[in-house]
Amino acid sequence: MLSKSQISLITSLQHKKFRRQHNLFIVEGQKSVEEFALSAYQTEAVYYTPGFAPKLLKLSNKINFHEISIADMARISYLKTPPGVLALVKIPVSAVLDHALLKEKFSLALDGVQDPGNMGTVIRTADWFGIEHIICSEDCVDAYNPKVVQATMGSLSRVKVHYHNLIKVLTEIKMPVFGALLNGENIYNTDFGTEGIVVMGNEGNGISEQLQHIIGKPVTIPQAGKAESLNVAMATAIFCSEMRRNTLK
Amino acid sequence: MLSKSQISLITSLQHKKFRRQHNLFIVEGQKSVEEFALSAYQTEAVYYTPGFAPKLLKLSNKINFHEISIADMARISYLKTPPGVLALVKIPVSAVLDHALLKEKFSLALDGVQDPGNMGTVIRTADWFGIEHIICSEDCVDAYNPKVVQATMGSLSRVKVHYHNLIKVLTEIKMPVFGALLNGENIYNTDFGTEGIVVMGNEGNGISEQLQHIIGKPVTIPQAGKAESLNVAMATAIFCSEMRRNTLK
Repeated sequence: MLSKSQISLITSLQHKKFRRQHNLFIVEGQKSVEEFALSAYQTEAVYYTPGFAPKLLKLSNKINFHEISIADMARISYLKTPPGVLALVKIPVSAVLDHALLKEKFSLALDGVQDPGNMGTVIRTADWFGIEHIICSEDCVDAYNPKVVQATMGSLSRVKVHYHNLIKVLTEIKMPVFGALLNGENIYNTDFGTEGIVVMGNEGNGISEQLQHIIGKPVTIPQAGKAESLNVAMATAIFCSEMRRNTLK
Repeated sequence: MLSKSQISLITSLQHKKFRRQHNLFIVEGQKSVEEFALSAYQTEAVYYTPGFAPKLLKLSNKINFHEISIADMARISYLKTPPGVLALVKIPVSAVLDHALLKEKFSLALDGVQDPGNMGTVIRTADWFGIEHIICSEDCVDAYNPKVVQATMGSLSRVKVHYHNLIKVLTEIKMPVFGALLNGENIYNTDFGTEGIVVMGNEGNGISEQLQHIIGKPVTIPQAGKAESLNVAMATAIFCSEMRRNTLK
């Protein structure tokens, strides 16, 4: 049985303040829990309801397993229908971003992306296209928010999400900086070359004005219909696809 | 002031059964309400809170406007933070699908798409790329579900969503039928030509087996990373982009 203080610690992790205080976040569902357990992340504990026990034994036995009641799981789960397994995973210590890590590959930069579903889907899409690093402005939604973690479907265990002053990083970096902007070059005529960073903007306001000045290569997805804008996650998918299409042919 | 029966009618429209019974659905937010009012849809009534009045006068005065209190708006609104304007719009009578409408253009077909957010984003993305028709299998989520309407950001007022027996429609139609499948032709080498229907499958199970047999041209988005799958809305965005890239260059 879980103590009151354990329940209160775990439920507090739905808030960024407490995630940072305890350096922990919640992962739910068998597939995601397994993927984090097998990744570089450190899994602190795994809680499961009786039905889950046999399946979970496939994981490393270095992890602390706790069988709990269905009622306790309902208390700590973030989801309406708890999948029956929930892990507490350590938030990695954020280090200085080593620019050498980004060389000869494509990375994404997100400027003020607010919606957890969008953030999660962007991380999942990046993972599909083999993008390893996403650099977020400090006002982006927290990648360890349970809604984001859920929407990444395990991809957060592979894609590294860094929070930094984007203006500083993009000013200092010696790589092509592309940005999703209106009145840029037609994406279908853009040569992305072999490395670069693609900046995607906030859901309502796009890329902030200050940051726009740093973007060397503004790129536009041409519009054929009448929708006012394309969702940021959709636009990211199209950018990822275009960046990779030559190497994936 | 709204009567109890009016409130109960409007709130009942969150359920498909009552939407079909009354042939009405809810649209919220100034931009979306305006777009529906200016479209071929018939707007039955517009409810607004006092602060909204002057802005709304831009709309046709053939529409029935009702000023209501903030408390009443909170009662009828589907959203946590009601935008202050809500319209009741008529569901159009669904006609036999005229195949001639689909000639010389690209359309989408959705097989069992369940998530309202995905459906809404697919409609919005289709609108961006100038796709006019989406044919849905009868087990897809209802396009007039308020979560779908919200996610389309007004695009539902322009894109026509048809519900039909997909197997029947795609068997009878005399056009290329593409489908998002594993082990198909690489999308980056696929010649989409100038017309066709692209079938996207259910979130968990993809395209149903029965329907797979009808797909003449299976197409695959190659994977470069380790994500198990791509979200259906993301995959749709990439298909739309690839279908249109030659004409948008």
